[in-house]
Parts: sequence; structure tokens; C-alpha cells
Amino acid sequence: MIKPIGVVGAGLVGSGWAIVFARAGREVRVFDSEARTLETLPDRLRANLRDLAEFELIDNPDEVFARISVVDQLADAVGEVDYVQESVFERTDVKRTIYEQLDDVVGPDTVIGSSSSGIPASEFTDGLDHRANYLVVHPVNPPYLVPVVEIVPAPWTSDTAVEKATRLMDSVGQVPVQVRREVSGFVLNRLQGALLREAWALYEEGYASLEDIDKTVSAGLGRRWSFMGPFETIDMNAPGGIRDYAERLGGLYLDIARERADPQPWSKELIAKAEAERRAALPLEDLGKRSQWRDRRLMALSAHMADRLAADGK
Amino acid sequence: MIKPIGVVGAGLVGSGWAIVFARAGREVRVFDSEARTLETLPDRLRANLRDLAEFELIDNPDEVFARISVVDQLADAVGEVDYVQESVFERTDVKRTIYEQLDDVVGPDTVIGSSSSGIPASEFTDGLDHRANYLVVHPVNPPYLVPVVEIVPAPWTSDTAVEKATRLMDSVGQVPVQVRREVSGFVLNRLQGALLREAWALYEEGYASLEDIDKTVSAGLGRRWSFMGPFETIDMNAPGGIRDYAERLGGLYLDIARERADPQPWSKELIAKAEAERRAALPLEDLGKRSQWRDRRLMALSAHMADRLAADGK
Repeated sequence: MIKPIGVVGAGLVGSGWAIVFARAGREVRVFDSEARTLETLPDRLRANLRDLAEFELIDNPDEVFARISVVDQLADAVGEVDYVQESVFERTDVKRTIYEQLDDVVGPDTVIGSSSSGIPASEFTDGLDHRANYLVVHPVNPPYLVPVVEIVPAPWTSDTAVEKATRLMDSVGQVPVQVRREVSGFVLNRLQGALLREAWALYEEGYASLEDIDKTVSAGLGRRWSFMGPFETIDMNAPGGIRDYAERLGGLYLDIARERADPQPWSKELIAKAEAERRAALPLEDLGKRSQWRDRRLMALSAHMADRLAADGK
Repeated sequence: MIKPIGVVGAGLVGSGWAIVFARAGREVRVFDSEARTLETLPDRLRANLRDLAEFELIDNPDEVFARISVVDQLADAVGEVDYVQESVFERTDVKRTIYEQLDDVVGPDTVIGSSSSGIPASEFTDGLDHRANYLVVHPVNPPYLVPVVEIVPAPWTSDTAVEKATRLMDSVGQVPVQVRREVSGFVLNRLQGALLREAWALYEEGYASLEDIDKTVSAGLGRRWSFMGPFETIDMNAPGGIRDYAERLGGLYLDIARERADPQPWSKELIAKAEAERRAALPLEDLGKRSQWRDRRLMALSAHMADRLAADGK
């Protein structure tokens, strides 16, 4: 019998996870220690599911919604499940507190994946009875529109837990990637951070406006990267493939990296300048509306990607 | 009267430019010093235009094709035009030779944009009579599918030349970005290089496979970046916008950057390991077929982007 999935933490990330699992046909039990967060959950879910149906990303929003139930006791969400996705507030002490509670009520084989985007599992699972079952399963927000998930074991996480989490993510349509051991920022935010650092530096030195640096990605680099990674991209950018590319351009990229060998903090002045340019383009009060636009763009892109996969015969 | 546009160099990049201009309704005169390159041009153009029509990115491939004429003298391509796009082989001496020839035959007001992806215009236009009219206008390949264009003036390029090139790119549907002064790699390849450097380092240190690093971008970061730049992305990733985000995460990103403060060359062993992983995924003889797949994916993505722009009312 297929067991339900537990979701602990029903904010933006947790509610997104509930949709991922329910969309794939799984029953979901959601708990949050804040009563208000649980109260607003149904309306938030309905709004997201309506959007997904509009973009033909799900057939029947009511059916998906019906698979998600709210419970007001932690033990009810996690007691009879094989897998729990934890998405509580990202601070080590908050994570630690919930894992101590979870450790008392979960079964001995229940795997718990944390949505932590930066804190490694070793910082909040050390010393717990079932720590071999705990690991990071880091999504991008919202997880039902951006499929990648970083699987990051603590030093004591069992291979079985890694395999179970990976198989589950595969089975619900996410794209799991294996980060073999803990590293600050994992892979995704390290890659993002590297690009951001160069972007901030170019802006600080006056080479280009914030808007033009953004366009260089959105009308340039990001087009290929939306369906091919950076290595596959360069593999096709030299006649002899990746080796040929690395030999031709390694020297140029090394020279550029050496110009950046003394990383500096993003200064208050730099941040204020960037803030002014962004707020001129988009007032702070319109940020929420623009985020909705972003999510709708991501939905349209997801529909497009599904069509392309079908066309590729995958 | 609207004058034709000159295209010098009819390889992959030059033929792509011919399509950009002709698609926008401009007459194009193409020259290449290699007779064979000119001979194969019509077939290559027809194949690309057929693909574009299939994805409904152009209405009438024959009309677009008819606007492109081949000339066998450099002076005939550039003699009576306002703008020339130069896309000869990327080596400083080759560029220098063609600019010396161009300088003798162009009119005093003709702007010449170089497709150079890395060599700044100052390295091949110094001392020429019309050097104030010459600058870099760097596309991504193929330019008719990836719209960004970096406009990079040499120290002696006139503001008028920069404005003319920018207006032209706008008018033919490209997305020009201003790189205010010369810098090694310009903006696009510096951003790509920064992300690549971190990707290679994570791979070298065994944190993830090449394939999983690629997926982190293609199923993650690259989705948003295909329609929003890195600054707009982080502006929406904290409640208070970009300032809030920079203050929250600046410390983490600085720590990560400091771990990379001693850039090393991509070693022979590292490149060989990456090469082996890529060639297991895609044999070298299939690289051409995969490049065609990439171009068709880009075409489908372009059609999707055009739909979204229309839906946004832009």
C-alpha cells in the first residue's frame, strides 16, 4: 500500500511541496505549528491549483486539492508515512527544535528531507536517534514549477535514505541531483553566487547598468541554460567538444578569474545604488504583482518544456 | 531611402546575421574572401529559413532569402551601406587585415560592428582613418534565435557610432546591451566564465557529476534566467527586494567567493575526466546532430517567448 507523505511547515515552500506530491497522485498530510498558516493554506492551494489548471499543467484541480489534508498534531502528519518533507523557517535553532520533536514521533524507517537552502543537515540533526534518515532535499521555489532538487546527505545519512529520497523525487516528476557531501550553499547557490559576484563587480565598476546585465542573461545566456547545462553548452561551442573549448578558452577565463581573486563584500553604497536602480524600474509595492507575473511565466515555460519533451519522444 | 546592410564573413555567424537583417526587411549584401564559403551560403540559408518557417518564426522564407545577395568584391558589400557587420575568423591579425581593407573602401559615415566575442576593437582598429566608426557588436550564436547583442566601443569609437549600432539592433529585433568600455570577455562571457569556474571546481572536488551540475542549471537556475536576469531574480527572492536579499545573503556569498580566491587553471586531468564523461553521454560524432537539436529547441523557445511577450501586451 502506498503511504501518504508528511509535509511539515505550510508556508510558501511547504504548500508548494504539497502540490508536487498531490499532483503526482500521493496523499499528503500537512502540519504547521502556526494555526494561522494552516488556516490560510486551503485558499493558497486553490489559487495555485487554479493557475496550474489554466496553463494545462494539471487536469483536475479539485482532485489534487482533495488529496491534501491538514492536521493539527505533528504526530498525525508524520506517524504513518515513509517520507516527510520539512520546510520550517530557515534558522538553525528553529530547524533543530523541530527535528528533536520529529525524532520522537517518526517511525524508524521514515526519511525526512529538509528544504534548507543553505544550512547543512549536520547542523540540526547531530545526536538524534534517527539521524541516519535525515538529509537535505532542497527545492527551488515554487517546486511545482522549477523541478530541480538538491539531495545533500549529512556525514551520517545512510545510502538507503539518499536512495529513497532520490527515487521519490524521480517518481513525483522532480529532477533530483546528487550533492555527494555537504558544502556551503550546495551546488545551486554556489553557481548562482559565482555569477552574481561577477555581475555585482561589473556593475560596481561601471561597465554596464543593472538592467543591461540582466538582459545579457535573460536575452542571452539564460536561453540555452533553460534546457541545457553549462557543460553541455560549451561542449557544443567548439568543433572538438568540451576539451577543445576548455583548451581554447581556459586561458581567457583564468585571466578573468585572477582579476577577481580578491573578493570584497557588496558595499552599502553598491547595494544602495542597485536598490535605487531596481526601485526605479519596479516600486517595492509592485514586487508581489511582479512575483505573480514570474510564476505565470514559469507556468507557461513549464507547459512549453512538457511539449518539447513530448516532441523529443521522452 | 533605406540602404542595404553589408555582411563581411559568411560563415556560421555571418550567415546568421544575414538572416537577422533580411528577416527584418532589410536588403543584405554578403561578402566572404573564401569562394567556397560564398558558394555554400544559399543552401545553408535556405535550410535555416525553412526551420524558422516551420516554427512560425518567419512567414515567407523565400521573401527573406530574396533579400540576401552575394557579392564577390568587398567594395560591393560595403560601398553604399550605412552599416557593416563583420564576422571574419576571430584572430587579431585576421581582423586587422580585413579592417585595413575596409578602411579603404567604406564611406566616411559607415559604422562597422565586429562580431568579435573576445578581442576588443581597439586591438584591430587603432590608427585607421575611420576608427571612430568601428566597434564590437557581439552576438550569441545563432543571432536570429538568441537576441542579445553586446555593444562595446573602443576608446576612440564615437557616441554617434554607438547610437547608430544600438538603434539598428533595436530596429531589427535584437536586444542591444551597452558595455560602456572595453573589458576582457565583455559582460556575457565574464558572467558565463564565473559560473563555469565554480562548476569546474565543484566537479574537480567531487561534489557532483558533470551531468548533475548541468541539471542544476537546466532544471533550476536557467528556468528563471531565460526570462529574468540575475538581479531581477534576487529582487524577488526576499520580501524587501534586492537590498534585503544582498544584506541577508551577502555574507554567505562572500565566504564562498573567498574559498575560490586562488583560481587555478583547468588541469589536463580535469579536462580529460570531463571529456570522458561528456563523450560517454554524447559521442563526438553526434555533436553536430545534437547542435541541430539545440537550435530547434531554441526555435521552439523563441516562438514561446514571442507568445509570452504578446500575452504581456508588449
